[in-house]
Amino acid sequence: MIDLKEIKDPSFIKQLSKKELKQLACDIRRFLIDNISKTGGHLSSNLGIVELTIAMYYVFDPEKDKFLFDVGHQSYVHKILTGRVSRFDTLRQFKGLSGYIDKSESKYDIWESGHSSTTISAMSGILISSEEDSRVVSVIGDSSIMNGVAQEGLNFISQIKEKRPIVILNDNKMGISKSVGALTKVYNKLRGGVVYGGIKKVSNKIFPGFFTRWIHQIKRGIKGFIQHDNIFEDLGFDYYGPYDGHDISYVIKMMKKIKKSKEPVVLHLLTQKGKGYKPSEDDKTGDYHGVSSFDVETGKPLNSLPENVNSYSKVVADYLVKHREKEQFYVVTPAMKSGAKLEEFASLYPRDFYDVGIAEEHAAVMSAGMALSNKKVVLLMYSTFAQRAYDQILNDISRQNLKVIIGIDRAGIVGEDGSTHQGIYDLSMFMHMPNIKVAMPKDARETIGLFNYAFKNIDSPFVIRYPRGNSLIDDIDYSYVCDLSWDYLAQGKELNIISFGPDVIRIKNIVIDNNISANVINARSIKPLDENTLDEIFKNKLPILVVEQAVSSGTLYHKILDFKEQNNYISKVISHSFNPDTIITHGKINDVYEHYGFSDNELLKCIKGALK
Amino acid sequence: MIDLKEIKDPSFIKQLSKKELKQLACDIRRFLIDNISKTGGHLSSNLGIVELTIAMYYVFDPEKDKFLFDVGHQSYVHKILTGRVSRFDTLRQFKGLSGYIDKSESKYDIWESGHSSTTISAMSGILISSEEDSRVVSVIGDSSIMNGVAQEGLNFISQIKEKRPIVILNDNKMGISKSVGALTKVYNKLRGGVVYGGIKKVSNKIFPGFFTRWIHQIKRGIKGFIQHDNIFEDLGFDYYGPYDGHDISYVIKMMKKIKKSKEPVVLHLLTQKGKGYKPSEDDKTGDYHGVSSFDVETGKPLNSLPENVNSYSKVVADYLVKHREKEQFYVVTPAMKSGAKLEEFASLYPRDFYDVGIAEEHAAVMSAGMALSNKKVVLLMYSTFAQRAYDQILNDISRQNLKVIIGIDRAGIVGEDGSTHQGIYDLSMFMHMPNIKVAMPKDARETIGLFNYAFKNIDSPFVIRYPRGNSLIDDIDYSYVCDLSWDYLAQGKELNIISFGPDVIRIKNIVIDNNISANVINARSIKPLDENTLDEIFKNKLPILVVEQAVSSGTLYHKILDFKEQNNYISKVISHSFNPDTIITHGKINDVYEHYGFSDNELLKCIKGALK
Repeated sequence: MIDLKEIKDPSFIKQLSKKELKQLACDIRRFLIDNISKTGGHLSSNLGIVELTIAMYYVFDPEKDKFLFDVGHQSYVHKILTGRVSRFDTLRQFKGLSGYIDKSESKYDIWESGHSSTTISAMSGILISSEEDSRVVSVIGDSSIMNGVAQEGLNFISQIKEKRPIVILNDNKMGISKSVGALTKVYNKLRGGVVYGGIKKVSNKIFPGFFTRWIHQIKRGIKGFIQHDNIFEDLGFDYYGPYDGHDISYVIKMMKKIKKSKEPVVLHLLTQKGKGYKPSEDDKTGDYHGVSSFDVETGKPLNSLPENVNSYSKVVADYLVKHREKEQFYVVTPAMKSGAKLEEFASLYPRDFYDVGIAEEHAAVMSAGMALSNKKVVLLMYSTFAQRAYDQILNDISRQNLKVIIGIDRAGIVGEDGSTHQGIYDLSMFMHMPNIKVAMPKDARETIGLFNYAFKNIDSPFVIRYPRGNSLIDDIDYSYVCDLSWDYLAQGKELNIISFGPDVIRIKNIVIDNNISANVINARSIKPLDENTLDEIFKNKLPILVVEQAVSSGTLYHKILDFKEQNNYISKVISHSFNPDTIITHGKINDVYEHYGFSDNELLKCIKGALK
Repeated sequence: MIDLKEIKDPSFIKQLSKKELKQLACDIRRFLIDNISKTGGHLSSNLGIVELTIAMYYVFDPEKDKFLFDVGHQSYVHKILTGRVSRFDTLRQFKGLSGYIDKSESKYDIWESGHSSTTISAMSGILISSEEDSRVVSVIGDSSIMNGVAQEGLNFISQIKEKRPIVILNDNKMGISKSVGALTKVYNKLRGGVVYGGIKKVSNKIFPGFFTRWIHQIKRGIKGFIQHDNIFEDLGFDYYGPYDGHDISYVIKMMKKIKKSKEPVVLHLLTQKGKGYKPSEDDKTGDYHGVSSFDVETGKPLNSLPENVNSYSKVVADYLVKHREKEQFYVVTPAMKSGAKLEEFASLYPRDFYDVGIAEEHAAVMSAGMALSNKKVVLLMYSTFAQRAYDQILNDISRQNLKVIIGIDRAGIVGEDGSTHQGIYDLSMFMHMPNIKVAMPKDARETIGLFNYAFKNIDSPFVIRYPRGNSLIDDIDYSYVCDLSWDYLAQGKELNIISFGPDVIRIKNIVIDNNISANVINARSIKPLDENTLDEIFKNKLPILVVEQAVSSGTLYHKILDFKEQNNYISKVISHSFNPDTIITHGKINDVYEHYGFSDNELLKCIKGALK
């Protein structure tokens, strides 16, 4: 028995017997379920990758070889095996263990992925620039491999085949929710070969290694006269699989084989997301992909939302269902059906709903294509992943002035996911695109008001961004239409505070609770500015504090400075935002707020500072 | 004989005999060579696509069906057939015919591509949102189809197979210069099947259509027991080809067949870039891809550069060759080997040079991977295509603070290529990325100075942007290192003018020539600012005119306003740049400059305005 807490580095694994390895897998699973049920985190993907990760550490040399975990949220087993168990109670908490690969945490953390599908390209670069004869392994999921970056990477590999790149396809038949598209069918066909894999497995057990290798070559040779076996062989890889990714002995055997390969190689392992924990094994919708703390017995979340509160994602999803009763439109989203709570819309209106998988660029261009026919389109993306469709939103949607409503979810600080997932760049990104309007609602009611405004008045691309997190839904009114004018949430005589999104409500409350005499202005439209209100604000000559939960570059503060300069106003303008050079780390949202100046406490300090 | 000038719409084609169609192809080729030799433009790709385009108009119904030309620079034949011959003498000129697809020009122009590889995704959107039973055709090249967006689109198609999308793969074995990667080999394998295609062709001639269709099905049926024919059939397409794309009768025959197809279909046509004009047929390096005016007899450009002048691309390319003698580094570029004049570097240092094809995202991530090993990397991209790697430069290179030198070519107005190619967004884009430095040299000498600075001092990603166009090279000194401080090109007492890049030299000359008493400051480092010099500038209390050939959003003007505000300075700051909502059209660079305020004349007006 190994005490997981005693693990200092992965060297112990090589000494273990097959039986002990199986025990280790059991122990890790139990630890993951126990720990994640308390801290929250990514459960299913980590339960699915236990044997695969152990086998990698058993077969390869982690002191020399390099493991790249695509996306990185499935790296918990890797973290356990590299001596980080004692920090798991701090998982995804401020200054605690990252939920992703983090180079500052361990020398075994090589590539900070976070955004999917980059490891094959990163591996290419590492292999080209490394002189030593180390092996580099990309562990990539079946959904991630379908993204354009990964496809470009796979296409490139044949240029460096002598570097012997290794791709382990961790195929859980799911991705974040469900893979889509033709490649899925290709992979399903490969999966269909599991019987054939089984035969290979038997023959590998009967014959010595060199013989099966020879058989493999003969088989390839004969088939080679006709054509290649599959898409990977088309791309220049030796393909092994599909095999059962939970049969640790067999996975080790095959990894030993591919380690010796002189060619680029794909090892295709079938794994079960959520393996070893009944509720997550049975999960078809992705509920156990990322979880908050839950009861291990029942699988139910420990904290549920009060009845009058909902996430912004759900507010938007419910609105879309309601609004679809009034008019036809399309919803397009890249792999966010579950994350953005779109199941109901998808099941009610399957012909109007397109989850295109992890294909942000395609999602944006396809939305543009739909809008060409003067159909209304809602494109839903997380702020951080919208970055991947920057050129398509700029060149295809906004340059062509196509009428797409772009819902940007998880705008602002996202909390536990950390630096690769912050929604702090989208504002800078959209503000310099032509024709586009950009707005952020302060609450659920206004979210609906802005969507209704967009649907009614759309004559250009329209971005509505909303945060990760929840809103009161008491005052929701599906017929409410709000316009793009700014309004005063509080009035006073010492200071103007301009902000947008839920922050502006917090600021109003801070001002009232602390008897501060300030105008609090809700700038729900960030582009265009409400120049009438802005004139009014400058005319009172009080200082103007601009609070933006975003990197400040071309955003509201700069636009207000520009307005001041052009109109020769004199009021002092103060920015409270993030410097573009700031990297914002992970943690509970309130801890991150506190550290980066956005807790109630810090906002009060900032307001008091502006009053001086 | 058809007079091309008489063409009003494409309906005439249906009446032509096969012989007349061939004559039409000849006439179009002659017209293209004649016309482009005078106006400049994209030659080779248009010569290659003559029969293909004629056949499309012959077989499909352009009043109902929709043709999407990927990239769009090969749409000249389409423009001729849709009645635009009389405007060809204005090709790519200001207010003249666009060199790309332009919806404002013709109802037959459906999709403004410009950036490659989007037509399959756009076609998906158009098909989903169109109710009528029209066919939609994407014409896409062999290089474009390898890009990630196109791969995401191909992967998606099986979701809408009942919409019967048609992809015509225009395979000229070349792309912009030369396709790379494994998919090339896959396509080469398909091309190997040209004999087989030939056999199919013969059988199609002998047997009636239904019979060959039946044969085709039988063949597929038998093979289907084993596996699919090729990568396209893997992706759910019926695959036809490869066929000779210049055999117009046969291409028509096969297009008629695919028009009736009930499935998604790929028609793979082999074409010769530059077909029908010896110098462009023989071109292996892409010199005839985009040409300026040339002598038809010799194929030589009419205007060559003086000996003491070179393009910025060439200045950088020559520098890299020189600098490589001093230290090892990698050069990575997406399909710009020819465009960025990198042939010499590539042939001298093949192991350090990677043209990855049209795969901007892969190029950026691979560069990050190389930099992880503390190797120096130069990533070269055009400004407009760097937009495609926004997320990878932000999340993978700059968030991880990896030491990549990013050379941004064609920054600013690009002239004839027009709105899809302007290099006016990259500055806004880079300015809000963490850790990154951004600089623009005023001339060739400073270009080298900045590259030397970057190589010597690099501790973070470093962007050096330079324009399309030429510079004097008299004073080039390969050992020159310039730092990031700003300097005065002229001194005066009435105005401060801050700018960067070659504009700052023009401004200096304008100021001197017109006896204007102004400080002209070369802000070669845009991020970080030279705060010492900026302090000095504000202290003279003269107005500050900031001239930026870029969309102004988060760029130098905003940063200077922010500096002013934080330091309580009072000088008036005036911006001369582009409003983010401006779409800048095509034309000779001086005409575009004149219209958008950047000709010498307009700059003088602007300076005089600031003096008031």
